[in-house]
Amino acid sequence: MKKPLVILSGGQDSTTCLFWAKRYPGVEQVHAITFDYGQRHAIEIESALKVAEMAEVASHEIVKLPDGVLRGTSPLVNADHEVGRYESAEALPGGLEDTFVPARNILFLTLAANRAYCLGCDALVIGVSQEDFGGYPDCRIEFIAAMDRAIAEGMPKRIQIRTPVIALNKRLTVDLAVRLDGCMAALTYSHTCYSGELPPCGSCHACLLRAKGFREAGVSDPLIERHRQPANPEARA
Amino acid sequence: MKKPLVILSGGQDSTTCLFWAKRYPGVEQVHAITFDYGQRHAIEIESALKVAEMAEVASHEIVKLPDGVLRGTSPLVNADHEVGRYESAEALPGGLEDTFVPARNILFLTLAANRAYCLGCDALVIGVSQEDFGGYPDCRIEFIAAMDRAIAEGMPKRIQIRTPVIALNKRLTVDLAVRLDGCMAALTYSHTCYSGELPPCGSCHACLLRAKGFREAGVSDPLIERHRQPANPEARA
Repeated sequence: MKKPLVILSGGQDSTTCLFWAKRYPGVEQVHAITFDYGQRHAIEIESALKVAEMAEVASHEIVKLPDGVLRGTSPLVNADHEVGRYESAEALPGGLEDTFVPARNILFLTLAANRAYCLGCDALVIGVSQEDFGGYPDCRIEFIAAMDRAIAEGMPKRIQIRTPVIALNKRLTVDLAVRLDGCMAALTYSHTCYSGELPPCGSCHACLLRAKGFREAGVSDPLIERHRQPANPEARA
Repeated sequence: MKKPLVILSGGQDSTTCLFWAKRYPGVEQVHAITFDYGQRHAIEIESALKVAEMAEVASHEIVKLPDGVLRGTSPLVNADHEVGRYESAEALPGGLEDTFVPARNILFLTLAANRAYCLGCDALVIGVSQEDFGGYPDCRIEFIAAMDRAIAEGMPKRIQIRTPVIALNKRLTVDLAVRLDGCMAALTYSHTCYSGELPPCGSCHACLLRAKGFREAGVSDPLIERHRQPANPEARA
């Protein structure tokens, strides 16, 4: 891997993947790509821009997808549906979280493969995690292996999919981030909350998972620290 | 297969696939989807609309993709490049036609899988042909098999890819069209020419392949017939 293209949402996992790619032995140049697909919160794009800048990427493209290019009942693409509070995977209908967007990761990998081909990149990096997949079928290693094969068969040049955090739970992802120079600083500006709140809501599945990972790793979350300092006097009243 | 979603470009192969799906035993409902991705010619969309109407599909969505969502040097997505005259596959750089758009069929199948999921469809039908693939890696059975696997792994519900003409050359595709009630009439409004001319230019790879197929099948092409009748007196002058 010499010239990876990193799919950067601006979240914790993709930020860690970006710094993993940047610090990977033999890597000469890192490119980033972010998809704006009618997420409900522009804050995610701002996070991605800031993180990419901090990683000094060779290029960063924000691909604006038209509203409705991905359909589904997920509140992430459909304003008629609200994000629910996470209880447990067992409580989900069909074992699927209500935030599942059908074919989202397939689409991201496909468009990224097109750009990787044009940029001369030899790898795609995506921050999916099988540990925390919460019922998303397209976060599993079986999906990534099949998609890697599909891209290999469908493209004239080999572009490999790399998934640095696929086997890591959030605690191990934090452990990895700590070891990657510059990554913790960038995580200060990363975004996680499904509800798009800042400071994060603390009650959605994404917030709970992130908090659990930092707690188990014994590290304080720089994103939370940033909003704790300076202390807000009104919050104490 | 009960409820297929057909990827309809409005060309000969996808038109034939649409009627194949419509006449397939046990099929209850046929849906169609067309991608408008900055093709140079609106005529392709018009063909798709007319063909879908003739097939009386249950729904037909035209998905408008933003300009530049697929990049590449192909004249099909890049107005700076002209469509060349086709000579032979051997003459192509890297064995690839200059009309290759990286990841195009992966993208179409991905977005179609998202829609199929939302519509409750159980199959995706695409008119790729390995016989005439002209160097496009994403028209080969190996790619389709890999992509079928990727969709199976990435989606919570099984949506199978069906490729009725993958093993057929253009002659055999014409033989199939003749046997599918209503298909020849719809082919009158189908579109093939890469240059977007009507009557077709007759010299691009697509026109040459289509003409060869009809000639070898011993059938006259209804698209050509339509532009021959009534005779144009000026053309004879």
